[in-house]
Amino acid sequence: MYNISQLQDLINKEIAERQYSNTPIELYEPIRYIMGLGGKRMRPALLLMACDLFEGSIIKALPVALGIEVFHNFTLMHDDIMDKAPLRRGGETVHAKWNESIAILSGDVMLVEAYQLMMKVDDSILRMVLDIFSEIATGVCQGQQIDMNFESVDEVSIAEYLEMIRLKTAVLLAGSLQIGALVGKSKQEDAEALYKFGENLGLAFQLQDDILDIYGDPDKFGKQVGGDIIANKKTFLLIKALEIAEDLDSEELQYWITIENADTNLKVNAITNLYNRLGVRQLAEHQMNIYAQKALTALNKVDVEEEKKMELRQFAEQLLIREN
Amino acid sequence: MYNISQLQDLINKEIAERQYSNTPIELYEPIRYIMGLGGKRMRPALLLMACDLFEGSIIKALPVALGIEVFHNFTLMHDDIMDKAPLRRGGETVHAKWNESIAILSGDVMLVEAYQLMMKVDDSILRMVLDIFSEIATGVCQGQQIDMNFESVDEVSIAEYLEMIRLKTAVLLAGSLQIGALVGKSKQEDAEALYKFGENLGLAFQLQDDILDIYGDPDKFGKQVGGDIIANKKTFLLIKALEIAEDLDSEELQYWITIENADTNLKVNAITNLYNRLGVRQLAEHQMNIYAQKALTALNKVDVEEEKKMELRQFAEQLLIREN
Repeated sequence: MYNISQLQDLINKEIAERQYSNTPIELYEPIRYIMGLGGKRMRPALLLMACDLFEGSIIKALPVALGIEVFHNFTLMHDDIMDKAPLRRGGETVHAKWNESIAILSGDVMLVEAYQLMMKVDDSILRMVLDIFSEIATGVCQGQQIDMNFESVDEVSIAEYLEMIRLKTAVLLAGSLQIGALVGKSKQEDAEALYKFGENLGLAFQLQDDILDIYGDPDKFGKQVGGDIIANKKTFLLIKALEIAEDLDSEELQYWITIENADTNLKVNAITNLYNRLGVRQLAEHQMNIYAQKALTALNKVDVEEEKKMELRQFAEQLLIREN
Repeated sequence: MYNISQLQDLINKEIAERQYSNTPIELYEPIRYIMGLGGKRMRPALLLMACDLFEGSIIKALPVALGIEVFHNFTLMHDDIMDKAPLRRGGETVHAKWNESIAILSGDVMLVEAYQLMMKVDDSILRMVLDIFSEIATGVCQGQQIDMNFESVDEVSIAEYLEMIRLKTAVLLAGSLQIGALVGKSKQEDAEALYKFGENLGLAFQLQDDILDIYGDPDKFGKQVGGDIIANKKTFLLIKALEIAEDLDSEELQYWITIENADTNLKVNAITNLYNRLGVRQLAEHQMNIYAQKALTALNKVDVEEEKKMELRQFAEQLLIREN
């Protein structure tokens, strides 16, 4: 069994050594750039960990793991255009550093490249792996569109929100694990149990992200604390607060999310105080724990020795007590 | 054997009847819209014609043909954003009708959808078909990037131009024919000969397009005559003219392509006269005929009865004497 940091090292080495076509350079330089910006390599690591549970060789799974990371970075490249984001992981975004056309087209090439990497599996599982991958890819796009739609609607329900994060975040984690298991020659039902594990872990992970935006340690979080509040982003916390706030609390919340050009510090403080009063952090943590529990239940069903599941269990635990 | 218009009808029927997912509607409505804008359906028709040469059922090839058309329309949707084009086939472009984010994301979903449709082949050719398709897709993106690069460089050689149109236009026609042949259970070498046929036909087709921009019948061409001249687009004609013009001709050409806010009628007239004097139309037609000849030579090598090749031969001939 390999531990997480060994797998991350392996993935980073593979990314660093990867050769891309060189012409036209405008298409491939942005790919090298975004892939080199770093990140936790969580999705390919999960894929390799799932593979490692079974008989398969993780070296053989490495191109497929890389394909998942290329796909993930393709979505970041295109999302950053849509979000008009200037920065990504401390560096300029691709559309800011080059231009929008290059970010669109490099992203398109990355999606093709991701498919080519996903195809580096045995014939016996080729169709299955590609079906799962296409399903993931469609889901992630749907999730992104629904997330954008949320910006212009007044009311979003908790159920709609959870479905959005399932599509935008959870299905990719889930599919990575399922594909990893299949490459590792798992039984169908074990691969499906790992999908469920990943899906619930992804949901818990995103709720944790919503909580960290406000309650994370500013030194460790890596993003601006309160960024979601400033942008009126419809997170679990805001949606829940809008749902349960009454009378003066409700009025105050409406005031802060409708006022333009608010002082950001005042706004973050006021809404954080409101969240504290309403106890939405606890409600989010409760929901997160439900998903974490479901994830572990799914992991329990995977038919391999307990010992082998240690790494995945630890990974899940670390993810949910993380500070960044 | 089916003739071209029967195949186009079949494809249009399939497109009209196609069901897409309905949520989120913002992703799928633009797909239905752009697919419904029409067009000659040349690529899927070629795919079906190639299939029809051999034993395969064209009904079985229909989803794959549709996949090629979805892919083609994905490239149009993204290219229109990059070109800031307001119109496509007489209708608004997707980014103009909705917005850029929707055009990016709908396009992404279309690329995934295209892969899903390409997968509707037998296991025995799945890997081969997807390899060809990925190769095409990468080539088209590379061609588009090189084409964009041409806008900001002073000198483009004829060889660079021909390589650009090979990637941007010809490989998709070529790959469509090759895939169609494989779905029709052709021998490898016949599929490859059809690739060569399509590649050369595509090159000839694009040169014809360059010629029609100026010498096409305005009532039939469907685009503004002289549009390439007005935009200083580096077509075969302009590149060749820049290469061979001397003294006063060269000075006059430079004048028109560097002057800003020129009267468009005057400019189109002046450059057309220059082209006539330099004989670049004849040079383009000569180059086009070389490719047409190569295409027909490749078609001759395909090991099926002459009679069966009639439709493809006619298609090629029609394409090269077309007025729109």
